[in-house]
Amino acid sequence: MKILIILGSESDIPKIEGTQQVLSQFKVPYDVVVASAHRNPKKVSQIASSAESKYDLIIAAAGMAAHLPGVVASHTILPVIGIPIETQALSGFDSLYSIVQMPSGIPVATVAIGGAKNAAILAVQMLSLKYPKLKTSLKALKHKMEKGVKI
Amino acid sequence: MKILIILGSESDIPKIEGTQQVLSQFKVPYDVVVASAHRNPKKVSQIASSAESKYDLIIAAAGMAAHLPGVVASHTILPVIGIPIETQALSGFDSLYSIVQMPSGIPVATVAIGGAKNAAILAVQMLSLKYPKLKTSLKALKHKMEKGVKI
Amino acid sequence: MKILIILGSESDIPKIEGTQQVLSQFKVPYDVVVASAHRNPKKVSQIASSAESKYDLIIAAAGMAAHLPGVVASHTILPVIGIPIETQALSGFDSLYSIVQMPSGIPVATVAIGGAKNAAILAVQMLSLKYPKLKTSLKALKHKMEKGVKI
Amino acid sequence: MKILIILGSESDIPKIEGTQQVLSQFKVPYDVVVASAHRNPKKVSQIASSAESKYDLIIAAAGMAAHLPGVVASHTILPVIGIPIETQALSGFDSLYSIVQMPSGIPVATVAIGGAKNAAILAVQMLSLKYPKLKTSLKALKHKMEKGVKI
Amino acid sequence: MKILIILGSESDIPKIEGTQQVLSQFKVPYDVVVASAHRNPKKVSQIASSAESKYDLIIAAAGMAAHLPGVVASHTILPVIGIPIETQALSGFDSLYSIVQMPSGIPVATVAIGGAKNAAILAVQMLSLKYPKLKTSLKALKHKMEKGVKI
Amino acid sequence: MKILIILGSESDIPKIEGTQQVLSQFKVPYDVVVASAHRNPKKVSQIASSAESKYDLIIAAAGMAAHLPGVVASHTILPVIGIPIETQALSGFDSLYSIVQMPSGIPVATVAIGGAKNAAILAVQMLSLKYPKLKTSLKALKHKMEKGVKI
Amino acid sequence: MKILIILGSESDIPKIEGTQQVLSQFKVPYDVVVASAHRNPKKVSQIASSAESKYDLIIAAAGMAAHLPGVVASHTILPVIGIPIETQALSGFDSLYSIVQMPSGIPVATVAIGGAKNAAILAVQMLSLKYPKLKTSLKALKHKMEKGVKI
Amino acid sequence: MKILIILGSESDIPKIEGTQQVLSQFKVPYDVVVASAHRNPKKVSQIASSAESKYDLIIAAAGMAAHLPGVVASHTILPVIGIPIETQALSGFDSLYSIVQMPSGIPVATVAIGGAKNAAILAVQMLSLKYPKLKTSLKALKHKMEKGVKI
Repeated sequence: MKILIILGSESDIPKIEGTQQVLSQFKVPYDVVVASAHRNPKKVSQIASSAESKYDLIIAAAGMAAHLPGVVASHTILPVIGIPIETQALSGFDSLYSIVQMPSGIPVATVAIGGAKNAAILAVQMLSLKYPKLKTSLKALKHKMEKGVKI
Repeated sequence: MKILIILGSESDIPKIEGTQQVLSQFKVPYDVVVASAHRNPKKVSQIASSAESKYDLIIAAAGMAAHLPGVVASHTILPVIGIPIETQALSGFDSLYSIVQMPSGIPVATVAIGGAKNAAILAVQMLSLKYPKLKTSLKALKHKMEKGVKI
Repeated sequence: MKILIILGSESDIPKIEGTQQVLSQFKVPYDVVVASAHRNPKKVSQIASSAESKYDLIIAAAGMAAHLPGVVASHTILPVIGIPIETQALSGFDSLYSIVQMPSGIPVATVAIGGAKNAAILAVQMLSLKYPKLKTSLKALKHKMEKGVKI
Repeated sequence: MKILIILGSESDIPKIEGTQQVLSQFKVPYDVVVASAHRNPKKVSQIASSAESKYDLIIAAAGMAAHLPGVVASHTILPVIGIPIETQALSGFDSLYSIVQMPSGIPVATVAIGGAKNAAILAVQMLSLKYPKLKTSLKALKHKMEKGVKI
Repeated sequence: MKILIILGSESDIPKIEGTQQVLSQFKVPYDVVVASAHRNPKKVSQIASSAESKYDLIIAAAGMAAHLPGVVASHTILPVIGIPIETQALSGFDSLYSIVQMPSGIPVATVAIGGAKNAAILAVQMLSLKYPKLKTSLKALKHKMEKGVKI
Repeated sequence: MKILIILGSESDIPKIEGTQQVLSQFKVPYDVVVASAHRNPKKVSQIASSAESKYDLIIAAAGMAAHLPGVVASHTILPVIGIPIETQALSGFDSLYSIVQMPSGIPVATVAIGGAKNAAILAVQMLSLKYPKLKTSLKALKHKMEKGVKI
Repeated sequence: MKILIILGSESDIPKIEGTQQVLSQFKVPYDVVVASAHRNPKKVSQIASSAESKYDLIIAAAGMAAHLPGVVASHTILPVIGIPIETQALSGFDSLYSIVQMPSGIPVATVAIGGAKNAAILAVQMLSLKYPKLKTSLKALKHKMEKGVKI
Repeated sequence: MKILIILGSESDIPKIEGTQQVLSQFKVPYDVVVASAHRNPKKVSQIASSAESKYDLIIAAAGMAAHLPGVVASHTILPVIGIPIETQALSGFDSLYSIVQMPSGIPVATVAIGGAKNAAILAVQMLSLKYPKLKTSLKALKHKMEKGVKI
């Protein structure tokens, strides 16, 4: 059980802190890789093409013309979760449309702009199909939220 | 292995034809239920709360103030895939924001406006974590797409 | 005569200060309840379903995929006033569309983004149908505003 | 018990057919008046200023720089429900913002773009505060909707 | 030769400083009146209806559901220049649409969001039709701008 | 007394029919010139630079990156009225922003998207500063509109 | 002298007819290749990586989450011109943002939504740096446009 | 080999620092000229009309109703690269649409809002058609980016 978190720039690492924090709470192991769809296209292609042997699914965060999640998805059959990063000029409208409006055949499971934590929870929900014990943890989280604990 | 497709109105059934068609190609069984988050809130709550025992995941399609996917997600730990339906006045901007901008704790895996087929493919990708033979079918689909076959 | 103010998170309480302040000026009693449509769906359902016996109307404030007002409205025949809360990424475009674009059958009386005070005034206007003495207070407010007093 | 429906142009009458139809179902009497906030400002001012003596509340429909609901609200303490009409160039974005974004002190209870039926239901909900027998009709409507009857 | 500047709130006075400054440079006299289209509708109506006897044209500034310029225009045959004020939630999208999207028959000459200085220059251009000596001043301004002087 | 109507393409002539019709009703003479800011920049520059000797004001209609009104305004001290033309892809959002968002120093009096008739009425209002008998015609128009005659 | 035109789907070929037509007028040879950034990522990568040896520049057209131009640009140092294709739900807002909002390091020279002809003219302008005789043809085109010939 | 950078105001000079920095890294000489399309139209026309004799291409930066790039393009057959500058009220939506949505015949190669560095890289890519040694520098840049060096 392992998740790949990929993002295009070291400067985006703070944007996925919520993802890491939630995955750690669920004791789901993950790797973080920095590889830009535009600056390292071959690296992204290699990582995504070979991800299936090491990972269960992929979380990709990107901003502006946020191609990374879609490019990753084009190279793998693993589920890809996309996190649109808020941007300076267009507030994330650009990131959101670039990630969610994928053409038929290559979906990206998109969460809210800045939805780092929800990307992790969605990932755990997917993993729980294969690792049913995660269902217990997800239910525990739901109970905590019902009691007012904030994620 | 079974998927629940839920939508708020019988008139939305044509909007998920693509979902049904792709799931059938993958031989993934599914149920279609019509229940509006606003007109049948108790029915939606019951269906979503008990879905875990019968289904692996849920696909919900909705338009305008498209609450159905989020409401379903609030009642289950199953992954929920949301399809924003194109709308007359605001073209789907409203549906998209109402589905994707979920608060921390309750993600909805959002696909493109009108992305019925991609909802199905994403569902199969998730299922393939548990049912690895679907990986073979997903790879076959990817090969066909590489050869120019349209989904 | 009593109003229910419901909001999804304790952190939203400052967003309805204006509502509380105006209701107090009109001497209209109210309860404030924190219950998230997504984290406490059953609590919201219970509160909304039973609101008719205790309250004349409901004011609900929410941000992002702001489902709370619509979900509350689905469980009651009381008038529901929705306050879209300004959001970080999309400025409240998301909250506004998620609240105002309700489907036929389940209206939400939507006020401006951040319109906490107007939610209260609208509530008093509605109440004045039943409690005519509030008409006097509303007229007094209108006269004060004509003289330049700001609400 | 009477409602005033006001709209700026005879050509907008088809846009409020849904309002009339729903009010008739609830046996709520109403008058329809055509008076433009821009072409007949004095007529609008007179009608709105004197509405309190004849009507319980007002429904106003308008498009583009849709000032009618707000202008009506500025002249009365009755609740004013605003229906943003879909427009050719900007799809109703303009109507919606012009109606919902009212300043503090003068609320307009805004429904969805083209939400003619919901304006009527919201009006009946408000009236039911004063005329409790309408609550029975509203509950009947809710039950019908639960059974799948479309409004 | 006199211009009426009208705005809905004392708090908007800083937003028209540029207007006052430019009119003073052109030695064009003006009055500033605070009267809200929503809080003082009768005052606005009176001022606008009688403006023709005292003023050559009117500049109106407003934000959010910015009805003031259109309401003023409905009561006069004088040219009305509208300044959309930048707003907190929607940045002025709301103000702009509410001012510029006027229906046939009642135009408002709209300038940029926050275009206080341009409202004054446009006013002077209009006045120069009647007071040709202003053309000399306008040409002098144009020459200064050509040399890099900022307005 | 003469108005210059300028537009960038022969294909835009139907878009200013309303302008011509209203000006004819007011018996205001006008010339129509086709000259594109982008394809005939020198012609536009010459026409605009010399317009002051023949015309009282200029109406310019344009779509997409609708530079014509602003370019014309940069070459003259006459008032320039801009009509944003509705566009296929972006509905006129592009035309509107390109016309109204002029920098300090060079205003364009912008009317609604497709506001051909209002451009003419605004022009007549401006002309009436110089030709007071037009005030009588403007008042007659206002009276007709009050009686429900549509412009 | 040769240009590569790349697009993601055979169904997009009509969208670049204008490009082909203009290039033919300039007698600039070109190849058209259909390869989807998402369905054929390896083909796109190969074509783009090796384009430098055969082509002077690349024109890429795409819609929705329009990654193709950016993905092509990531694999080559040739100039890449991007044509955002108008889309059903979001009119091309999605295509435009996905193409133009590229991160630092990997530009895409973006033309208007549906700007197939302009992509060709821009391409010829670029080529004319290397093949000066194209300057003569560009000047001839400019002269024809000045005389009113439409492109 | 020389590039002309043109911008409408001295206050915009910080917005093109990235352009200057990247061009210097590539040892591409450039001139910076301040000339506003609206305040100095003749200067802009002269500079653009005569640019062909001194420059290989032009980079133009502008905000709001950002006409400068299009106006420059209308006077020359050189490629024109447009940089939309982020704006206070509309974040650059206005600048972007005003620059990219050019009509057929007069393209502007548009980069991202605030894309000063990419304008320079795009310029170098164009120049490399004529000056092949720049290809070596562009490849070196690409290699550096692959290794994680940020532009």
